[in-house]
This record gives sequence, structure tokens and C-alpha cells, in this order.
Amino acid sequence: VIIYGRNPVHEAFRGRRAVKHVWGTRNALREPWLAPHGAISTSAEPDELERLCGSPDHQGLCAEVAPFQYAAANELLALAQPFIVALDQVQDPQNLGAIARSAECAGASGLVLPERRSAEVTPAVCKASAGAVEHLPIAKVRNLADFLADAKRADLWCYGADQEGSETYTAIDYGRRLVLVLGSEGRGLRPRVAHACDALVLIPLRGRIESLSVSAAAAVLIFELARNRQGGLHDA
Amino acid sequence: VIIYGRNPVHEAFRGRRAVKHVWGTRNALREPWLAPHGAISTSAEPDELERLCGSPDHQGLCAEVAPFQYAAANELLALAQPFIVALDQVQDPQNLGAIARSAECAGASGLVLPERRSAEVTPAVCKASAGAVEHLPIAKVRNLADFLADAKRADLWCYGADQEGSETYTAIDYGRRLVLVLGSEGRGLRPRVAHACDALVLIPLRGRIESLSVSAAAAVLIFELARNRQGGLHDA
Repeated sequence: VIIYGRNPVHEAFRGRRAVKHVWGTRNALREPWLAPHGAISTSAEPDELERLCGSPDHQGLCAEVAPFQYAAANELLALAQPFIVALDQVQDPQNLGAIARSAECAGASGLVLPERRSAEVTPAVCKASAGAVEHLPIAKVRNLADFLADAKRADLWCYGADQEGSETYTAIDYGRRLVLVLGSEGRGLRPRVAHACDALVLIPLRGRIESLSVSAAAAVLIFELARNRQGGLHDA
Repeated sequence: VIIYGRNPVHEAFRGRRAVKHVWGTRNALREPWLAPHGAISTSAEPDELERLCGSPDHQGLCAEVAPFQYAAANELLALAQPFIVALDQVQDPQNLGAIARSAECAGASGLVLPERRSAEVTPAVCKASAGAVEHLPIAKVRNLADFLADAKRADLWCYGADQEGSETYTAIDYGRRLVLVLGSEGRGLRPRVAHACDALVLIPLRGRIESLSVSAAAAVLIFELARNRQGGLHDA
């Protein structure tokens, strides 16, 4: 697999998968964190890099790395205090990458994706996540509603993000084992997935347009959950 | 100006600027909200739409609209309870659009951009904002640090988002007239802009990567400010 971009290559070196080779412009190869890896680095012109990775967004660096290793959903459920983010058919690689980055930054335990009709961890997702996918466990499950049933049996609470929901996102105490479920942009949660949630939470909107982007909603909810798990319910 | 995309065209009709003509695929022109506008609508093939707007992301709809009207920064400062978001040299149209969308959804008063080295409200920004720019006052100022000085004279507090800041974003009472200032991805706030702020606030990060995206940080901060202005300080 050829990943590309400065942060993705840097985080691959700091993460779990093997980095086999690096190609970079002379300038990019001067990054101090690449100094120990001269033996596997080759200098290349920008157009060669673009051919290698198939994208103009390489920022002067590409790397051949081992395939992305997905985590096991069961292992996420077995954690002491899981804080799992599940995505119901988020298909845009930019959104998957952006949500992975926010989840990793907030200290979430991991991400769960359905096998079908979901973006996977491609090099474009690595790039959009700024390399966050190298540090965040990401699991694929056959059926998301079944996974939520498993999560409930494992004593997790499932919160679905849904603007038709009955609870404001800030009125809940999230200091428990939990899954936050986000739907795709436009269509939201599928009925069976919404039905499998213990509560549906909404973000109060005060503007004239109808909806936040899924990556903005994810950032708002993930950081509120992270804050609340550290500090408890606020007084609003 | 030719804007494109389903939400941008829809919001242009709901917003302030004149819509002169619409081009759409037969299917897209069946949208019920377009029914009253048959006299200015023409059906077109997808490749014609792409030529018209210069982007493959038209979703079957383009429209010719009046140029975007910027707001006056002074008028934003003169509001009763201003909640202004200022962007220090955010150059990526996707980021500007995403932040405009979050700001509009949260009920912010408006956005302030510097004249130079900032993305402007182009059709790509309209698209990335899902049409939010049609409802959100957006002002351009010659110099952002000078604008912050004006804001302070107008009795606003200026909060800069800065991971080197001294205050956690949730530890502040935002129930006052204020400006939230966000820097560009990668470089953050320029020193003179940071210096012009009353306080620099940070979002605690608990992961291994170094930073949130500017649009995720904006969503987190803007919605915390909106929540706090409604409900007061939380107990964390």
C-alpha cells in the first residue's frame, strides 16, 4: 500500500504498521524524523510521487507500508471503559478521515465501521485523518445493528446522533461504557440502527440551514463526551 | 457568479442575493422548491453543468446569482450580543466553508476574514458551506489585529484558539460580547493576532497526533460557546 502526505508518513513511522520504503522530494527528505531512515529512502520528483500514489496531495512524501490492520470489535467491547465511535455507512473518505482524526485527538477507544457501504481505511483516508488512523483501533463489523446489540450485552450504552432525537447532547452523563453512533451525511441513521440505540441525542441548531456536516457533528459530540467523561455533567 | 450544488442553490433562493437563472438536470429540476422558478430554469446535461460551473460537484444544479455581498465589520460590532468568529488567514476553501456552516448552525452573529491571504466567498466555499454563507454575515477587514483592537474598544472580549494557550476552553464563561479567533491549519494564530486576544484557549487533546483540524476545532469551540451562552458555565 502506498500512503502519501507528510503527516500520514510521519505517523506511520510512529504507529503499528511496517514502513517498507519512502520516496520524497529532496526538500521533504530533510525532515529530521526521516534521518534514521535513509537506507529505505529514495529521492523523487513531484510528478513521480504523484504517479506513485495517484494523488497530487502528496506534499512531497509517499511511503510503501504494510496493509492497514483492522482491530477486532470484540476487543474494543472488552476494554475497561470503552468510548467507541461507530459510523453508519459514512461513505466519503474525507468524512471518515476527519472523524478518525477527531476521535483520536479526543482519546476515543476506537472506531467501528460496517463492512458494506462504508468508506474503508484507504490512503485517501489516512491523508484526511492526518495519520490519526495509525494510532486509532478501527474495526469492521458485518452488521452495525447486531454490533450494537453485542455492545448492549457487554454493558455499553448506545447513543445515536439524530436531530429527531429526544435528548439534547449536553443533558446526558456520559461517564459510562458507551458507543456513539453517527449516520451518513444526508440520510442519518438507518431505522434499524437508530432502533438499536438506547437514546437518540440532538445538537440544538440556531441557524437557518438544516444540518451540520457529519464531521462537525462528530467533533462536537466526541469532544463533549470526552469532556463529560473527565469532568461530569455540566449545569446547563 | 455561477454557484453549484443542491444546497447552495436552495439556500441562495432562501437568502439575500438575487438568483438570475438556474440550470439543472431534468431530475434535479423536479425539486419542489424549484417549482415557482420555472421561468428562470433551463434543463441541461451534466457535462454542460460541469462546463458552466467548472466543477464536477454540481449535483445536477447550477445558478447564476448576484455577487456575494460582504457585511460591514462595524455593524457586527454594533450588535447587542455579538458572537463573532474571526479567521486568521484560513486559505483552504473547504475549511472556510465548513467553518461558515458550523457558525451559521450554532447561531453565530457573523464571520470576519482578513482581506489578504484568506479564502474568500467563492462558489467552492458556498458549496463547502452547504449554502450557509447565504445566511451568515461575512465581513472582510484590512487587518485582523486592528479589527480585534476595534472589537475591544467596542467592549467585546477576544478569545484566540491556541494549543499553547493558558485556559481550557470549557473553563470560561462566554456569556458576553465576544470574538472567537481561529488560526490557519498548521501555523495557528500569527503573533500579533494572538497578542491582540484577551485570552488564549486550548482544547485538551488525549491522543498521539498533535492537532485537530481547524474545522473540527472550530466546531468544538463554536458549539461550546453557543451552549455556554445559553446555559452558563458547566461544573467541570
